[in-house]
Amino acid sequence: MHPLPSGRGGVAYGIVQSLPTRTRRALLGAPKETEQIRGLTLPKRAALPIFGADGFSAIAYAPDEIMMVLALAGSAGLVMSPWVGVGVAVTLLLVIGTYRYNIRDVAASGGDYHVVSDRLGPRTGAAAGASLLFDFVLTVAVSVSSASSYVTTLIPVLAGHRVVVAVLLVVALTLIYVRGLHFMGRIALLPALLFVLCLVAVLGIGIIESWFGALDAAPSAGFHVRPETAESNSLTGFGLLLLVARSFSSGAVTLTGVESVSNSVRFFRAPKARNAAYSLVAMGLSTAVALVGILYLADASGAVVTLDSSQLVINGHAMAEDYPQMPVLAQVAQAVTGHNILLGVFLASTVLFLLLAPAAAYAGFPILASTMAEKGYLPVHFRARSNRSLYANGELVLGAATVVVVLAFRADVNDLIQLYVVGVLFSMSLTQAAVFLSRHQEIRVVLARLPRRRLLRDQVVTMIGLVATVLATVVVLVTKLAQGAWVTVLVVGFLTLATLAIKKHYTTIDQELAVKQKNPLKALPSRVHAMVVVPRLRKPALRALAYARATRPSTIEGLVLNVDEAETRKIRQLWDKYEVPVPLTILASPFRDPVTPVVEHVREVRKASPRDVVIVYVPEYVLEHWWDKFLHHRSGSKIAAALRREPGVVTAMVPWRLGHEDEEKLS
Amino acid sequence: MHPLPSGRGGVAYGIVQSLPTRTRRALLGAPKETEQIRGLTLPKRAALPIFGADGFSAIAYAPDEIMMVLALAGSAGLVMSPWVGVGVAVTLLLVIGTYRYNIRDVAASGGDYHVVSDRLGPRTGAAAGASLLFDFVLTVAVSVSSASSYVTTLIPVLAGHRVVVAVLLVVALTLIYVRGLHFMGRIALLPALLFVLCLVAVLGIGIIESWFGALDAAPSAGFHVRPETAESNSLTGFGLLLLVARSFSSGAVTLTGVESVSNSVRFFRAPKARNAAYSLVAMGLSTAVALVGILYLADASGAVVTLDSSQLVINGHAMAEDYPQMPVLAQVAQAVTGHNILLGVFLASTVLFLLLAPAAAYAGFPILASTMAEKGYLPVHFRARSNRSLYANGELVLGAATVVVVLAFRADVNDLIQLYVVGVLFSMSLTQAAVFLSRHQEIRVVLARLPRRRLLRDQVVTMIGLVATVLATVVVLVTKLAQGAWVTVLVVGFLTLATLAIKKHYTTIDQELAVKQKNPLKALPSRVHAMVVVPRLRKPALRALAYARATRPSTIEGLVLNVDEAETRKIRQLWDKYEVPVPLTILASPFRDPVTPVVEHVREVRKASPRDVVIVYVPEYVLEHWWDKFLHHRSGSKIAAALRREPGVVTAMVPWRLGHEDEEKLS
Repeated sequence: MHPLPSGRGGVAYGIVQSLPTRTRRALLGAPKETEQIRGLTLPKRAALPIFGADGFSAIAYAPDEIMMVLALAGSAGLVMSPWVGVGVAVTLLLVIGTYRYNIRDVAASGGDYHVVSDRLGPRTGAAAGASLLFDFVLTVAVSVSSASSYVTTLIPVLAGHRVVVAVLLVVALTLIYVRGLHFMGRIALLPALLFVLCLVAVLGIGIIESWFGALDAAPSAGFHVRPETAESNSLTGFGLLLLVARSFSSGAVTLTGVESVSNSVRFFRAPKARNAAYSLVAMGLSTAVALVGILYLADASGAVVTLDSSQLVINGHAMAEDYPQMPVLAQVAQAVTGHNILLGVFLASTVLFLLLAPAAAYAGFPILASTMAEKGYLPVHFRARSNRSLYANGELVLGAATVVVVLAFRADVNDLIQLYVVGVLFSMSLTQAAVFLSRHQEIRVVLARLPRRRLLRDQVVTMIGLVATVLATVVVLVTKLAQGAWVTVLVVGFLTLATLAIKKHYTTIDQELAVKQKNPLKALPSRVHAMVVVPRLRKPALRALAYARATRPSTIEGLVLNVDEAETRKIRQLWDKYEVPVPLTILASPFRDPVTPVVEHVREVRKASPRDVVIVYVPEYVLEHWWDKFLHHRSGSKIAAALRREPGVVTAMVPWRLGHEDEEKLS
Repeated sequence: MHPLPSGRGGVAYGIVQSLPTRTRRALLGAPKETEQIRGLTLPKRAALPIFGADGFSAIAYAPDEIMMVLALAGSAGLVMSPWVGVGVAVTLLLVIGTYRYNIRDVAASGGDYHVVSDRLGPRTGAAAGASLLFDFVLTVAVSVSSASSYVTTLIPVLAGHRVVVAVLLVVALTLIYVRGLHFMGRIALLPALLFVLCLVAVLGIGIIESWFGALDAAPSAGFHVRPETAESNSLTGFGLLLLVARSFSSGAVTLTGVESVSNSVRFFRAPKARNAAYSLVAMGLSTAVALVGILYLADASGAVVTLDSSQLVINGHAMAEDYPQMPVLAQVAQAVTGHNILLGVFLASTVLFLLLAPAAAYAGFPILASTMAEKGYLPVHFRARSNRSLYANGELVLGAATVVVVLAFRADVNDLIQLYVVGVLFSMSLTQAAVFLSRHQEIRVVLARLPRRRLLRDQVVTMIGLVATVLATVVVLVTKLAQGAWVTVLVVGFLTLATLAIKKHYTTIDQELAVKQKNPLKALPSRVHAMVVVPRLRKPALRALAYARATRPSTIEGLVLNVDEAETRKIRQLWDKYEVPVPLTILASPFRDPVTPVVEHVREVRKASPRDVVIVYVPEYVLEHWWDKFLHHRSGSKIAAALRREPGVVTAMVPWRLGHEDEEKLS
């Protein structure tokens, strides 16, 4: 092995390259070797909390979303909330039940994007990829926004600063996840266990209390909920159906966790498919139970939550619009435990668990982006090249995109949900369609009876799942499009077009650069014309002359720009005095332009002998400080930049490092 | 002559280089040839209005400044204003009378800075230069701020936007003056004539009216002026003296015009010294007469003006602090002409004339900066290199500095005056001291009786002028230091230290780069090691290999970075397939760093044979669009940047221009 580069320090290239090395290392951790990162997997005990957290954490905000919609019809609407919860839970279990059978295919291909890309073609794959990328951003945005609202419940002085808290959380999370999944694997179990234990205790005690009629009233139980004017008459017929459908659509956010696990199959230890399927079922069951339990206890304790605080009425007075409402889970916990230290512990564990939820996104986004980049659908910077974590660029872009989304939607979970659900359901529909198609093709070639029957069974199951997710997608699209889902449609559409444009760009270049001759190196340019740019005849120019002469070119000349007569005369005198054995060409520069005359001269020489090479030697100061550019012309760099656009011209930079005279002896 | 560079368009290098060419040309005008600009002079009829405008335009604000200070003592203080005016006028004439004799020396040296630098040494010269540069900025700031207050008198809806108006005026002026003095010379006479004619009419008619008791009352004549509490008891003894001294100091702003003419000597047609001296006297006489006349009429018409509008009392009620007051000149004009269209014409001509006043600064600042840059006291960018006006960089920096000053002082003429007067008097004192010293040295060597007597007379006159300006400087410093003159002391002090530091920087580099050997080109490096960086074996790399081989180096090798095993294997296969007759070196890169392994390898080769040259050929895409950098790694540029810091290493960039395949045939 080559010795590890040290001394000059591992410099990360890519988006973060402009930070000073030390700051970068402090923020992003030490570099890691390729072998350390590739092929990282986690045992089930770490994988389940990390990748299941996204789905299970939905119970921190899904009850609120279900109830808020129903509350549009006033207190009367809220009584339906446990039944909508049951509907959502059944759908979730149905989808998981069918998705289990997809996991094998997903694991074999490498991820949802691969499955869709392989079976439905690269263009549909690009759409799936775009949708998944945006889903990952929304995963982080929703989790962090919800965490922020629990933080402000826990620490009321922060109430007015929800957006700031959310942004700071995103920044902190990004910096933690950049340090890698290994690190998360080590610390994930504790907050997950704490949250689950607390939740089991709250739900268990709460249900027992409610059986014995000992459950306290929730903090918001005293409010009467005034129907929103537009919805007040809608509790009959189609209006009722629409309201329930909308409420169901909001609850469907619990389904997003399915995708997170499915996309993280690669991180599970072998047998990957079985371990992932197990985690999927465990997550689905616990989410379903917890969701229904929370909604039941919310109903039993009289908890209410509304989209608009002015819907809350107490003693005939409506509350102010900015009256802060507690999340339903927090209300239930308070009704069960009373307002004491236990409630604080529970809220804190909820926050920690919500911050664990984006792990799947931070693991999935960079790998998906890297895969798409390797196939040419995303910029090459997303490929594993950074010397930090392999995927630091992807993680940083995810963080930045999340900050933008959080700011754009003011960390409002309700607003973000509208975008999130439709994106996830769209991706899931694509995956299931791809798996369905793949089954269909398999059946054609498998003729043995037993395997064929198993395949048919699998195909039916996938079909059921596909129908369920497509139906859910349609319901969500219809009920949410105007509420904000159009943003997702727009963003995913735009991203898809962008990936296709990028692919086209790379393909064009590949074709242009591909070598078509059989023996491309036969003909060499026969002659080399060297030119040495001489701004002043001092050490740097003398070195450039010496180096150029050392290469023994066919012809050589010095180039002097006549900007100032006196200076030009001085160079000529020194040229004679030093007996420089090279002819000197003086170029007129009536407009004092240090670049154009050189380019024009090079073009003339090229025109005279187009099959030769012109090498222009440019002496150049190397500046040490950022302020040096305020003290020196950078004509050398400018000439080099202009010559890059001339075909057949090589620009040889001969540097002179100022302030390092000992190193810079003229050889 | 070489044909003029065209096609690629004259690209301006320097501070404005980042603007697109077309925008730049629209804003700054077409490029001008060096010969067109150097040696530009103006006939007296253009030079007098342009360079005299600064001094004469002071009558638009000097009366206000004199009266505001006296008004601190209430209505009783204001009666002294004509007498302070006479004091200022006498001082002005005295200084001009003596300065006439300096002009010859200034003209011979090239400007005030040169005189001081030649006679009092380069360090004092740097201080004089720094002071003059800051004076130029303040000249523009004061003129424009005063113009802005006339604009708001003329167009009352702009009253609250004085700062915005001033900034817009600076921007407009800068863009006009960048187009050159020629242009100003053609248009300057008209506004100057208009203003002078209007002023003569106003003063003439006003004085006749006042003799016959027919002068109307000024718009502010109804106000009683309440003394500022702190100053109310000061109308006796030392307090009175101090107040008059402060008022005089403010009036001394009329002296600033002397410096403007003196600094512009180079622009006068021959005989320069005589023409400039004539202009100086003409300007001084008319300024003195106008100042006294305006103050007399202000007194006669009962005009008042105060620093703080709440000093104005009518019927026992004080005015609000933000009550807008009219400039004294406008009040006098209204008293004489009545409030009609003539007043409007007069105010408009005053604005135009005030905008002519900064011409001396826009002409002087860039040339002074250029001179100081040539001597190494300012960054090289100020030297005449831009292909627009020779001095576009200086003009743009002047404009930018003025905007900063105007914003910092909210375009308040009263605040700016405090900074301005002290700076100008300091520079004038230095010039006079330099001339005095030069006379002293001349007298020592001249023994003939007649010339000696003339020299002695001149020396006495200069001495009188020197004493007058030094006394004025001391009075102004004492009375103004706390009012804001400390800013000037600080800025000029800082600028002086900065110029000295810059000089030191350039001197160090000059010494480092100076050639000390007698025959520096005798020893050439004996061997050339060529290395070709091969990121992928496609056309750009093949071209780099072909070019490197064409130069017939002593040794040659291809460098491949092993970031991805599969890709490295592919390059090796192609290497064999194409039968590349060059050995291939594979560098390990466990941290995926595309730069460090190359640098390490180059260092090893250098260590083995330190007196040879290493040329690293780097194939490089040339990107066409700004967004291309989001789609491509720029490893080539990064390698080049890192290699610039290695001594004895030449980096040869072999460009491949994407999308120009026809031009890019592999030769």
